[in-house]
Amino acid sequence: MVRIVVATAAQGSTERWHRALQDALPQHDVRAWQAGDAPVGAQYAVVWSPPDALFQVERELKAVFNLGAGVDGVMALPSLPPQLPVLRLEDAGMAPQMAEYVIHHLAWLSRGLETYAKQQRAAQWAPLPAIRYDEWPVGVMGLGQLGAHVARAVAALGYPVAGWARSPHTLQGVSTYAGDDQLGAFLARTRVLVNLLPLTPQTTGIIDAALLRQLRPEAVVINIARGAHVVDADLLAALDAGHVQAAVLDVFNQEPLPSDHPYWAHPRVRVTPHVAAATLEDDALRQIVERIERLERGEAVSGVVNRATGY
Amino acid sequence: MVRIVVATAAQGSTERWHRALQDALPQHDVRAWQAGDAPVGAQYAVVWSPPDALFQVERELKAVFNLGAGVDGVMALPSLPPQLPVLRLEDAGMAPQMAEYVIHHLAWLSRGLETYAKQQRAAQWAPLPAIRYDEWPVGVMGLGQLGAHVARAVAALGYPVAGWARSPHTLQGVSTYAGDDQLGAFLARTRVLVNLLPLTPQTTGIIDAALLRQLRPEAVVINIARGAHVVDADLLAALDAGHVQAAVLDVFNQEPLPSDHPYWAHPRVRVTPHVAAATLEDDALRQIVERIERLERGEAVSGVVNRATGY
Repeated sequence: MVRIVVATAAQGSTERWHRALQDALPQHDVRAWQAGDAPVGAQYAVVWSPPDALFQVERELKAVFNLGAGVDGVMALPSLPPQLPVLRLEDAGMAPQMAEYVIHHLAWLSRGLETYAKQQRAAQWAPLPAIRYDEWPVGVMGLGQLGAHVARAVAALGYPVAGWARSPHTLQGVSTYAGDDQLGAFLARTRVLVNLLPLTPQTTGIIDAALLRQLRPEAVVINIARGAHVVDADLLAALDAGHVQAAVLDVFNQEPLPSDHPYWAHPRVRVTPHVAAATLEDDALRQIVERIERLERGEAVSGVVNRATGY
Repeated sequence: MVRIVVATAAQGSTERWHRALQDALPQHDVRAWQAGDAPVGAQYAVVWSPPDALFQVERELKAVFNLGAGVDGVMALPSLPPQLPVLRLEDAGMAPQMAEYVIHHLAWLSRGLETYAKQQRAAQWAPLPAIRYDEWPVGVMGLGQLGAHVARAVAALGYPVAGWARSPHTLQGVSTYAGDDQLGAFLARTRVLVNLLPLTPQTTGIIDAALLRQLRPEAVVINIARGAHVVDADLLAALDAGHVQAAVLDVFNQEPLPSDHPYWAHPRVRVTPHVAAATLEDDALRQIVERIERLERGEAVSGVVNRATGY
């Protein structure tokens, strides 16, 4: 029997995962944990943005499972022991949801669906010319499992797609760029920028005035990674200057997005409340259970975060 | 040298295709044709909803190329000689556009994006529960090149997808149903109905009250085939009764849709002006040129319409 603690930022979520994990692992001892609780001597922690106190109290952990693809919430905790393996979810149903979200918003602009909605209100029948895909080059920043999936899905629709990441990648049907040296070339050919980077000290604030001005005119920014990738004042200035024609934002520097934030009412910004991809619980549960069993048998597991790169 | 006539429903379109074909086939004699013109003795006609007079006047045609996937506009002409081969475009860039159109509108409902747009106007942050794909079974009617492509693209996003056609088909990842006998079973498991049937006497008016009432509750109808597939009064009644929660309509019994038609102002209907997929001219041109060359060499060509089934 192993002991597992569940700690998330919300009590309801902690209780739901506690129940689900205990049901899936009846032979083990699963506990809900919140700041102030005494140590339980757990070997595994299943977390989403847990309190830092977790790692001060639980000193026998062999691995931490993060309930999502982005591990920045865990990695930022001062008490996280440097040698403790952190495992991220791999996909867990998120990649197709991200692709669907991007395709929906891309089509809204590239296929004139926003215009047709306006025409409908005026009972006006006025077909636009057919799309010219060469006018809509899409660039995906971040080529992990999610970024690669989104890039391939958009390329399959006929759009010219490029991808950029810190290290070189090869993706069928997608032009790839790597590292700081090739970022300029990537941005210069990109009109629709889709951000799926991991959040690390190097990528915090990467979408700033200097980056935005390198995009093609009438650019579109779709951010489905982390709010802290974007310098909000710079994005708003680029929108107001017209160089960026629209922004589709699912993540924000502060969540929930404060009700007086200018994004809400901006006519060229679409706000969604961090829903581009939800972790599908069944899939996440299956991954966690499988990997706990492998670790208990002393086998290797995938999805371990590289502590040097932070993702 | 062969002689080719171009005849479409719109003068601008005829002129554009005339120029493009003449540029692509400089060794041949390409003519723009309109009702009232004298016979030119053409071997090939390139048409989109041409006047019936074309086939009364041009009596030496060896084949007709239809500038689209749906050939109902040609097949309905009384003067079309029964033995004259009619060739439809195969895809020509239409399938990915159709998939994009369907995904956009499916996500609008299934992913709560309509709700989030309303929340944005109220500066309200209120994430909905994650999508449960089993609540959104999609059914595609018509499994030709376009229907099969759309079915596969939607299935790749995680939705349970079924397809129905007159004759049996096999499609990876898609449950298929065939013929009148299995239509009821197909409808009973379908909530989002996507129509991509060919328009024939058998499919005219197929989306009527009897069909709609067999769909799952809170059904969605997406029609991107032909307006005449739908009995408008029946669809409006099903919308008003609430059994159909939304209709996304790109094609209509009368086009342009008359400005006083109830679809325009209906809060649960999205109208687009026959733009779900445009023929991409470069691709269409390449297909026509290749097939004229094959026919001139006496070789077989694909895309010949079966005059018995009408598609």
